[in-house]
Amino acid sequence: MAIKVIKVLEDILGANTELAKENQSRLDKHGILTVNIMASPGAGKTSLIMQTIKHLKQETRIAVIEGDVASSLDAETVNAQGIPAVQINTAGGCHLDANMIAKALDELSLEDTDLIFIENVGNLICPAEFDLGEHKKVMILSLPEGDDKPHKYPLMFSEADVIILNKYDLLPLLDFDMPAFRKAIAGLNPKAKIFSVSCQTGEGIEAWLDWVRGETGKTNQRLP
Amino acid sequence: MAIKVIKVLEDILGANTELAKENQSRLDKHGILTVNIMASPGAGKTSLIMQTIKHLKQETRIAVIEGDVASSLDAETVNAQGIPAVQINTAGGCHLDANMIAKALDELSLEDTDLIFIENVGNLICPAEFDLGEHKKVMILSLPEGDDKPHKYPLMFSEADVIILNKYDLLPLLDFDMPAFRKAIAGLNPKAKIFSVSCQTGEGIEAWLDWVRGETGKTNQRLP
Repeated sequence: MAIKVIKVLEDILGANTELAKENQSRLDKHGILTVNIMASPGAGKTSLIMQTIKHLKQETRIAVIEGDVASSLDAETVNAQGIPAVQINTAGGCHLDANMIAKALDELSLEDTDLIFIENVGNLICPAEFDLGEHKKVMILSLPEGDDKPHKYPLMFSEADVIILNKYDLLPLLDFDMPAFRKAIAGLNPKAKIFSVSCQTGEGIEAWLDWVRGETGKTNQRLP
Repeated sequence: MAIKVIKVLEDILGANTELAKENQSRLDKHGILTVNIMASPGAGKTSLIMQTIKHLKQETRIAVIEGDVASSLDAETVNAQGIPAVQINTAGGCHLDANMIAKALDELSLEDTDLIFIENVGNLICPAEFDLGEHKKVMILSLPEGDDKPHKYPLMFSEADVIILNKYDLLPLLDFDMPAFRKAIAGLNPKAKIFSVSCQTGEGIEAWLDWVRGETGKTNQRLP
C-alpha cells in the first residue's frame, strides 16, 4: 500500500515538472517575470502583493494568480486595484500545481503583462514540492511564527530565492531570536536574500521593490 | 490520471478511518482523553501544551505525541518538564495519520496516562481530513493570522470542537475584526467553544484549563 502511494506521488511530481517547464517557456516567450509566493496562512502573502502593486503599478504591468482552498476574497482585493486577477480554488488541495497555473495563464492577457505574482495556498510544506513554472520562489515568514521554523520546515526555507520577514513592526513584543534565525538560514540556504518588512506600515518595503524591479528588468531584456 | 489519484486518496482515507477507530478503542480501554491540536506553523501549539502541562501536571498524568516534518525540538521541550513525549517525523508529509499514532501509542505507558495531547503538523488544511482516534479536535488561530481565515480554511474551522484564539496580547496592535470572526464561526460551526488566550502571558488560560479538566473527568468516568 505504501509503495503504491509513493509511485503515484512520483508520477504526479514527474508530470508536474514537465508541465511547469511548458509554463515557463510560455512565460519566457512573453518576457514575463513570474514569482511564486509561499507562506503559512496569514503571514502576509496578499499584503505583500498589495504593497508591491501600490508602488509598482505605474511602471510595471502586473497580474496575479490567487490560490486558496476556498473563497475568492484575495482575487477581489487585487481586482479592486484595477489589476487582472485569476482565482484558483483547490477545493481541499493544499498546494497549487503546474496544471492549475496553465489554466490560469489561459485567462490572462500575457502580451499585456510584465510580472505575474502567484499567491500559493497558505501552507509551509507541500507548495515547496511543486514547481509551477515560476522564475523565482519567495517565502514569507511572519515574525510571530517564531525563529525555529527553518528547523521544522527545512524544504521551504531551502528552496526560496527570497525570504521575507514580515510583521517586523511587532518584533519588540516578540521572543524572536534573529541571530539564531539567520544562522539557521546560513546553514540551509546561504544564497537566499532576506528582507525584513512590515506590510502594514510599509517599513522596509523599498529593498524588496528594488529586487522586484531588478528581476523584472532582467526578464524583459531576455525577450527574443 | 486524475481519477486514479482520487481513488488512492479514498483508499487512504478509508483505511485511516478504520485505524483511527482502533486507536480510539485502545484509548477508551485505558480511560485516556486524547486531544488533537492543529494549527498553522507557529500559532502556539507547543506553547498551549506547555501552559497546560505547567498547570495540570500535578493533578493529571499527561503524555504528548509530537508531529513535525523534521526536528525533535518540541518533544525535547516537553520532555524537559518530565512529561513522556514521542516525536513523529513525517519526512515531508503534511499531516499525521492514524497509523503513525498507533505506532506512537506503542511507545507510551498507557496504563499510567490520563490525557494525551497530539500536536499535529503545522498546517491548516490536511490535518482536518485525517482522524487519528482522538476524542476532541482543538484548533488554534494566532491572531496575527487575521480574521478572514475561516473563509479560507473552512474544513478546519468546521471540524474543531474548540477554537483557541492565541496571542491575544497582540490584539491592540492588529487589524483583527473580532465580530466578523465570530460571525464566520457562528455560520460554520456554532457549537465550537472559543477561548481567547495568550500562551506567552498566561492571560485567559484558566477557561481552557477548566475545559480540559471537565473533559478528562468525563473520560475517566467512562472507564469500565
